[in-house]
Amino acid sequence: MDFDLVIQNGTLVIGNQIMPSDIGILDGKIAAIARGLSGRKTFSAQNMLVIPGGIDPHVHLEMPTPTTITSDDWFTGTRAAAFGGTTTVIDFIEPEKGETLLEAFHKRRAQAEAKCVIDFSLHMTISRTDPQTLAEIQTVIRTGIPSFKHYTTYEGFALPDEGLLAAFNAIAQAGGLVLVHAENDAIIKHSTLQLKSSGQLEPGFYPLSRPAIAEVEAIRRVILLARFTSVPLYIVHISTATGASAVEKARYHGQAVFGETCPQYLLLDQGRYQDKDPLYAAGHICAPPLREPKDNLSLWRMLQNGTLQTIGTDHCAFNLHGQKDKGLNCFTNVPGGVPGIESRLALMYTYGVRRGYLTLEQWIDCCCTLPARIFGLAPRKGVLAIGADADIVIFDPNRKVTITKDLLHENVDYTPYEGFELHGYPVATFLRGELLVDQGQWVATGFNGKFIPRFIG
Amino acid sequence: MDFDLVIQNGTLVIGNQIMPSDIGILDGKIAAIARGLSGRKTFSAQNMLVIPGGIDPHVHLEMPTPTTITSDDWFTGTRAAAFGGTTTVIDFIEPEKGETLLEAFHKRRAQAEAKCVIDFSLHMTISRTDPQTLAEIQTVIRTGIPSFKHYTTYEGFALPDEGLLAAFNAIAQAGGLVLVHAENDAIIKHSTLQLKSSGQLEPGFYPLSRPAIAEVEAIRRVILLARFTSVPLYIVHISTATGASAVEKARYHGQAVFGETCPQYLLLDQGRYQDKDPLYAAGHICAPPLREPKDNLSLWRMLQNGTLQTIGTDHCAFNLHGQKDKGLNCFTNVPGGVPGIESRLALMYTYGVRRGYLTLEQWIDCCCTLPARIFGLAPRKGVLAIGADADIVIFDPNRKVTITKDLLHENVDYTPYEGFELHGYPVATFLRGELLVDQGQWVATGFNGKFIPRFIG
Amino acid sequence: MDFDLVIQNGTLVIGNQIMPSDIGILDGKIAAIARGLSGRKTFSAQNMLVIPGGIDPHVHLEMPTPTTITSDDWFTGTRAAAFGGTTTVIDFIEPEKGETLLEAFHKRRAQAEAKCVIDFSLHMTISRTDPQTLAEIQTVIRTGIPSFKHYTTYEGFALPDEGLLAAFNAIAQAGGLVLVHAENDAIIKHSTLQLKSSGQLEPGFYPLSRPAIAEVEAIRRVILLARFTSVPLYIVHISTATGASAVEKARYHGQAVFGETCPQYLLLDQGRYQDKDPLYAAGHICAPPLREPKDNLSLWRMLQNGTLQTIGTDHCAFNLHGQKDKGLNCFTNVPGGVPGIESRLALMYTYGVRRGYLTLEQWIDCCCTLPARIFGLAPRKGVLAIGADADIVIFDPNRKVTITKDLLHENVDYTPYEGFELHGYPVATFLRGELLVDQGQWVATGFNGKFIPRFIG
Amino acid sequence: MDFDLVIQNGTLVIGNQIMPSDIGILDGKIAAIARGLSGRKTFSAQNMLVIPGGIDPHVHLEMPTPTTITSDDWFTGTRAAAFGGTTTVIDFIEPEKGETLLEAFHKRRAQAEAKCVIDFSLHMTISRTDPQTLAEIQTVIRTGIPSFKHYTTYEGFALPDEGLLAAFNAIAQAGGLVLVHAENDAIIKHSTLQLKSSGQLEPGFYPLSRPAIAEVEAIRRVILLARFTSVPLYIVHISTATGASAVEKARYHGQAVFGETCPQYLLLDQGRYQDKDPLYAAGHICAPPLREPKDNLSLWRMLQNGTLQTIGTDHCAFNLHGQKDKGLNCFTNVPGGVPGIESRLALMYTYGVRRGYLTLEQWIDCCCTLPARIFGLAPRKGVLAIGADADIVIFDPNRKVTITKDLLHENVDYTPYEGFELHGYPVATFLRGELLVDQGQWVATGFNGKFIPRFIG
Repeated sequence: MDFDLVIQNGTLVIGNQIMPSDIGILDGKIAAIARGLSGRKTFSAQNMLVIPGGIDPHVHLEMPTPTTITSDDWFTGTRAAAFGGTTTVIDFIEPEKGETLLEAFHKRRAQAEAKCVIDFSLHMTISRTDPQTLAEIQTVIRTGIPSFKHYTTYEGFALPDEGLLAAFNAIAQAGGLVLVHAENDAIIKHSTLQLKSSGQLEPGFYPLSRPAIAEVEAIRRVILLARFTSVPLYIVHISTATGASAVEKARYHGQAVFGETCPQYLLLDQGRYQDKDPLYAAGHICAPPLREPKDNLSLWRMLQNGTLQTIGTDHCAFNLHGQKDKGLNCFTNVPGGVPGIESRLALMYTYGVRRGYLTLEQWIDCCCTLPARIFGLAPRKGVLAIGADADIVIFDPNRKVTITKDLLHENVDYTPYEGFELHGYPVATFLRGELLVDQGQWVATGFNGKFIPRFIG
Repeated sequence: MDFDLVIQNGTLVIGNQIMPSDIGILDGKIAAIARGLSGRKTFSAQNMLVIPGGIDPHVHLEMPTPTTITSDDWFTGTRAAAFGGTTTVIDFIEPEKGETLLEAFHKRRAQAEAKCVIDFSLHMTISRTDPQTLAEIQTVIRTGIPSFKHYTTYEGFALPDEGLLAAFNAIAQAGGLVLVHAENDAIIKHSTLQLKSSGQLEPGFYPLSRPAIAEVEAIRRVILLARFTSVPLYIVHISTATGASAVEKARYHGQAVFGETCPQYLLLDQGRYQDKDPLYAAGHICAPPLREPKDNLSLWRMLQNGTLQTIGTDHCAFNLHGQKDKGLNCFTNVPGGVPGIESRLALMYTYGVRRGYLTLEQWIDCCCTLPARIFGLAPRKGVLAIGADADIVIFDPNRKVTITKDLLHENVDYTPYEGFELHGYPVATFLRGELLVDQGQWVATGFNGKFIPRFIG
Repeated sequence: MDFDLVIQNGTLVIGNQIMPSDIGILDGKIAAIARGLSGRKTFSAQNMLVIPGGIDPHVHLEMPTPTTITSDDWFTGTRAAAFGGTTTVIDFIEPEKGETLLEAFHKRRAQAEAKCVIDFSLHMTISRTDPQTLAEIQTVIRTGIPSFKHYTTYEGFALPDEGLLAAFNAIAQAGGLVLVHAENDAIIKHSTLQLKSSGQLEPGFYPLSRPAIAEVEAIRRVILLARFTSVPLYIVHISTATGASAVEKARYHGQAVFGETCPQYLLLDQGRYQDKDPLYAAGHICAPPLREPKDNLSLWRMLQNGTLQTIGTDHCAFNLHGQKDKGLNCFTNVPGGVPGIESRLALMYTYGVRRGYLTLEQWIDCCCTLPARIFGLAPRKGVLAIGADADIVIFDPNRKVTITKDLLHENVDYTPYEGFELHGYPVATFLRGELLVDQGQWVATGFNGKFIPRFIG
Repeated sequence: MDFDLVIQNGTLVIGNQIMPSDIGILDGKIAAIARGLSGRKTFSAQNMLVIPGGIDPHVHLEMPTPTTITSDDWFTGTRAAAFGGTTTVIDFIEPEKGETLLEAFHKRRAQAEAKCVIDFSLHMTISRTDPQTLAEIQTVIRTGIPSFKHYTTYEGFALPDEGLLAAFNAIAQAGGLVLVHAENDAIIKHSTLQLKSSGQLEPGFYPLSRPAIAEVEAIRRVILLARFTSVPLYIVHISTATGASAVEKARYHGQAVFGETCPQYLLLDQGRYQDKDPLYAAGHICAPPLREPKDNLSLWRMLQNGTLQTIGTDHCAFNLHGQKDKGLNCFTNVPGGVPGIESRLALMYTYGVRRGYLTLEQWIDCCCTLPARIFGLAPRKGVLAIGADADIVIFDPNRKVTITKDLLHENVDYTPYEGFELHGYPVATFLRGELLVDQGQWVATGFNGKFIPRFIG
């Protein structure tokens, strides 16, 4: 057989198996797993791990806020993702007032397709529950968007319990999945007010405005609301040990609850807010905030024991200078979010696999396979399988790298992982058989990222 | 020494001790515990248990609703309580719009004092959190009302999380205690709407409108809100095993949470709603609704292991004919509540002590001592102690009685305990040394109940 | 490329992936996974699942007892295994007095190699802890036997705690793994004595002689002894929910504990002992005994949540007539054990996968991959991977079969699964690329089973 | 009424009540609780707590070991107890070979009665399970000894599981209660052997010979053996958090398990063994050994939540010089045990009540009421009740004292509590109405301690 491309002599990670083998690629799909394959092109993966391209289920690119817009757009963001070994991202649609869900979808899809260099999909944000909106959910799902994001906090996005129940109910009946950003709005408002009234407004005080208990309360509540409406639930960016425990218990009792955490909640902690430089603190403002070291440890354990299934980055980049610095006097003016789209696979390998928290299989599961499966991209994405898209990453387990702002390709003037030592790094990335990145160089041309409709259940 | 009254030869239940002894009473107080006492009057308690007068921490007498008023007023209700061995009740103040908390207190106190035949106190209801109201809390506490009732549901009463936090915070700072009726309002509204839209409105459908999960969610949430504001929390009328478990866990971690349940949640279950006669179902409509038999059992166990401290009746009497029957076509029109003020001690003895769920000490604790202690009536009330008020009940552990509407003195045309066999019944009740009831006869004159100011912490 | 054999058009189950593909086999190894492969021989797997050959980690073939010998020898037993889709078994070496461990190994290996038609390995039984025996452990491990079986009960086999500690310690230092048959000997003796003294000796009384608490106690104890000596522990044939819970807790705290259960503990219950026919009861005598239906359910759940990793059969066949019937008057004379080597894969598919307890991946994990991995047969066995032995089973997920004694090839006059309906059955079995069974016919010649040395850690 | 003695104006602690009152005593019994009593003698308790005399359920007086005898005999030991506010002790009978249980009882009773200055009772030690011994248990119980001590370790005392089952079974049928010293013998032997083989024999190594896991294993096991034989179980001197947790779980499931801990396990930790002076380490050798600070904390919490019911001292005094120093080169030669009979009440008050771990009621419960009730001394002992023995302690809650060897009356040349600050101390002790100790002076004459037969259930 003559393949378009053969990736030779790599060590494939397929489910819980490691196998030294070639991979043959034809028409952008994986066509053969065997040794000694020949093809029109070959790529040597000697001494390398060959893994599925990463799926980042939680990113915010080209996202406007009331006062600014994220520094990474669909081009810079997806290119950085590809450098880091991610070949599919799932971003969000945020319908504006007066816009139907589908209108918003088409607008957002077009925006992405114009610039995207990897594949992408979108979650639909539900921030209103009028009958027309609820009625449209069925159609949205049929269009390939089966996952719906909800907020329990944030002006303009937060739904009260009544709204959550109405939306969950409609989504359950239509066969969709709900995502929730879970933090108790009243606790946040109450805390923020107390900080304001005592003049504690510098960025360093920010974590006090969103205490752990706010997340814990909201996670417990939405689990019950989801149980009540029989809808599968995915909780984004879990940051606390106690919040994750609530997921663990629900899963133990058989409820369909999934949990995501992010590298920042595994590797960074609230010590970052105590720096003398308020801009440094501002650079770490994200919601939920960074937590305590013991939360880091518990979240690793919750990944290990299967309570948490996925690693998203919640990549949401704003420059320190010109964006984050607008709030040096008042943390409520700091645009929230941290960048991280590029370092996910490598951070999880060095700090997860090499430290013994994760097996190789679990690493691939949480970064590739399970995001694909939970959100309906499988079996096309997230796995090395005959017939799957040839989204493949060549990962050198022995490459040593130190993260610096300059190393990365994210379009933002800092990285919270500055100075992190990595032992293992992606060296090449293929999207549907096309080489995008090779040895740190961008080798592709054009914007070939495609919208991938998703179907679940 | 010459006592005003000596209760002779009884078996006293004092804490975890049983002791055969006389009690000597002087000036309405317990003055001596010894054998062979003599006094100007004597009362034989041969073969009887001598116990403190009951404290019912949760009653609704002479309570108006939008369309009617409870059938028991301060006179009929407190007289029935006395027949059943209860010598102090704690009812509620519900300030009206435009009325200060203190104005409402004085009005309610005067109303009670005019007719009350046993002692009473009042909880203050907080259904608004404007600055003036919050500012008044300190004064209310100093006046002897340290406990504040909150609702998470009910039009006109429910506070959202923001309101609960504001109130809890103010009460914590003033040194008070919060009570909460905990049911998730959104779940109730959502469920009620679904029942309405499917035409399921007869009383038998009522429990579906307030599912267990509504209580569970709200209990978990208010426990966290109370923890966040460092206020001691008392959850009224817990009806579910899972709700009680939340209290158990919070107590295990050292939080000051108290739990109350009621005879109806221990002894009755939702089978009652399935009767062919809708009026029978209506007679059992109370909030939260009756639950499953397994909840009954778990609540007994939670009393046993100390998770729940008190038995209140939530006595709230409406006649079947002329009141409950207004809602035969739509359960939302049935005034909610069940009577029970008279049977509490005897039901808890027969079904608690005789069945082995409770020790004698636990019976007295949950019906007398702990309500007194938690709400600041101790050491004056709730115990047989030198110096305490001589509120004493003579309880015949061998008297066999069957509950019927005619046996009871509650001013209502039914009892949910009709036909319950009792083995043990109160035969005499003393209030501050004065005999009120003797062998089923009312032997006192006048309205001698007094308002008892309470102080905690 | 020209393969020796191509299995065409099957649906491969590889880890958590399903992929429609051919498999190419060369020199007895899996050489290619791709579509459109050609080879000198082909085998159509159209509409079939293609899975790794089963690994049964717990069988007893040609095992003598004081009074008899198992009816299945190395030939009949391994042939039956192959019919059922199992291509490797792990049996036991039981050194006799005066025999070194290695002498016993060589004798047992030779016995097996003479008749075995599938591959095999052996666990070493430790029933004495003299210094010479302990000193030999290192050599045994180097010879390819890294797993050591211990008994807490059975005359001649049981080790007291001191013995367990000595053995565990020696095995830990040599880098081995300990297996334990965990039942408290004193409870069994005490119970048996009580049954004897009350004349309750028919087979139906058997389960009372080995109550659940005996297993629970011993499992908890050996977990602590293993923790104390830092040795990885594998508990065989877990039969009780509470016993499995102890494994769950230990794993939660990070201890290396593995759990095995058997089809009989998942699918049969102690109702079997209550049959009027004592021979029927005798046919179900095995240790531990069958338990309650709720244990069945819990064990399924423990497989589901990963507490239990493997399914062994503990196949130990004795004929009802001529063997089991020796104990009709006294259960202690019934040779213990049930047959099951042939039905494992199919029972776990129908009752595990089809009922929704297990995913396809979990089915393969517990029957193939994890036994191979835990005991050191991976990556050569237990997976479909490039370079692995071509031990492959073609499984028809739609074939409907009813188990009867006549259907099976086990050399024993009954099956406890008589009448079980199966929906899914193996239709062909390959050992290292050689077809053994095809459509219910034995198509191989000779005794080609090999001893497979194992190495762990 | 004219009392023999009136204790005036004290603050009585009765169950969960505090009451300012006099106590009138007649014929050695409590006859009246009232104010203004008059008697032939009076004793002012102004500003004092008046509490029941302490019951120490676990002491070893005049106990021989193979090489020596405890330094405190029945006289010095019970006198020290009385100074500390303890009016009843329960010691042990250890039948010798060839002696029946009753013979041993009579001998031990006579020995005590000759010298005892407070009341006493005895537990029977079961270290053999021959039929005659088991048959005698019924008689022993009828004689007033319903509690039987068992050991899982110690040459000559330890019973294997078979023995424990036989004894537990016999005691269950006779209506008795079992006590167990729970430590896994094999782990102790294994650990001791390892220490010996590495020459680690100084007293400082002692705790390594009895690791926490030895206690945990044995506690879990005996709980199951007790459950299996349906016998109530009392576990002596629990020293570990995890051991106490096992009791907590068993109690949660309704098993009759009681737990005792000792002041040394609440207040001292294994840092004591790390002293440079081996004699200091030797002075703290007791079994089980002192544990970690976190165990201290957990045990306080387990007292608080009711998992543990009693405080015994396990008083077992050996002089440092002439006894403990025999083992300076080898800890196995150090006679095991620490003194503590005199400081129990005061230590528990200062470190329990004053630090907020215990309420006044819990203090009295664990030191007086519950030992009396569990072991069958109630209602005669352990409570202030009409009709009870007038064993009364006058406790000054404000007296400040520093523990030193010289302050105490124990006949031993050190105290492990040297330097402990106390805030609260007993100032007078009455035994059946007779004043024994007044303001630190011994004011009684003769040896008036009596054997108190006990009856339970």
